[in-house]
Amino acid sequence: MHVVVNAAMSADGKLSTRRREQVDISGADDFRRVDELRASVDAVMVGVGTVLADDPSLTVDDPELVAEREARGESPQPARVVADSHARTPPDATLLDDAAETFVLCAEEEPPGHHETLEDVGATVVVAGENRVALPEAFEELQAHGVEDLMVEGGGELIFSLFAADLVDDLSVYVAPKIIGGREAPTLADGDGFVGDFPELEVAAVERLGDGVLLEYEC
Amino acid sequence: MHVVVNAAMSADGKLSTRRREQVDISGADDFRRVDELRASVDAVMVGVGTVLADDPSLTVDDPELVAEREARGESPQPARVVADSHARTPPDATLLDDAAETFVLCAEEEPPGHHETLEDVGATVVVAGENRVALPEAFEELQAHGVEDLMVEGGGELIFSLFAADLVDDLSVYVAPKIIGGREAPTLADGDGFVGDFPELEVAAVERLGDGVLLEYEC
Repeated sequence: MHVVVNAAMSADGKLSTRRREQVDISGADDFRRVDELRASVDAVMVGVGTVLADDPSLTVDDPELVAEREARGESPQPARVVADSHARTPPDATLLDDAAETFVLCAEEEPPGHHETLEDVGATVVVAGENRVALPEAFEELQAHGVEDLMVEGGGELIFSLFAADLVDDLSVYVAPKIIGGREAPTLADGDGFVGDFPELEVAAVERLGDGVLLEYEC
Repeated sequence: MHVVVNAAMSADGKLSTRRREQVDISGADDFRRVDELRASVDAVMVGVGTVLADDPSLTVDDPELVAEREARGESPQPARVVADSHARTPPDATLLDDAAETFVLCAEEEPPGHHETLEDVGATVVVAGENRVALPEAFEELQAHGVEDLMVEGGGELIFSLFAADLVDDLSVYVAPKIIGGREAPTLADGDGFVGDFPELEVAAVERLGDGVLLEYEC
């Protein structure tokens, strides 16, 4: 599987404010790029924190991009994937609507009943790992479901976990020309953090985009 | 006064690890650039957290740059400035050596005696503000001491305070191609963070430097 992480952060590395309210970080140019990236992959993934904070749809917005997917013999929309160890995704979350297939990746110890509730509203539940979802196993299962190209849109906890599991192939970061600040604001890579053996990236492209800068790395 | 903030961060916005241990974030090319920037200013500033964590000297390394300063009729080294509300700078801190003049900016409520201890080892103590140093007043006092060009090297608490006080003119960030991660790791701008009215920057230059990218902003 090929995994590209795509995110927009402030110049100081924040994905949103300390209140975890969504901030309009990227502009129209980046929105277009993200929509094209979504349209090019088999599935778009977020962590459950992002679902709870933003309730995203993760769907492709532009009808022409949707039509191009269909012309290629693909589903109109890429699948949605939620990393959700304890099955906290609300059954009425937007990404559980019928716009696309949705996979919820849970650990074994998720609270009883949640798993079934999510399946009742149409999600495909993938169980891997004991108390936290085992991403490598879960990704193998996704691959068995036909997901070869996966785009990850955050948040920082999931992105850190993916780097920690050495599962990231490419990283694209739109750096917005603003300061959000905050020692408790979510950043591009949160989690426990590394204290050595830092994942090293290679700069693949640097581009001015809208008012900001797009940095593309190979991992 | 003209204030340039200069820092090196990981691709995810971190200045160091959650343990606050210094990480070799920038390479030789950026080290040279920082040395030249230091040589071009009247004073180099850090927050006391950086003094306690890294014990930096903040001096210009290259003897030729020092000689050029002297040829211009300047002091061999730029002055050092510490933002240190509660006068926690240890009297044996490296930046209190006699390599250059050092200003310690304190609030009025600093513990009794510390102020005098710092003066005894040669520091010039500037008192402004009640329980936290009032940066605008302190900067006026620095200006009265001849500091027209100030370079700020961090950390994230000081950088946030400077943005909050609208005191930053330019921001230069070297973005290293590595991930540090960590929800508790220090970032380029920490503090309480903004929740609205985010300081907007303008991208002045984007340059590949060594293995990373140098982003320069006007504020």
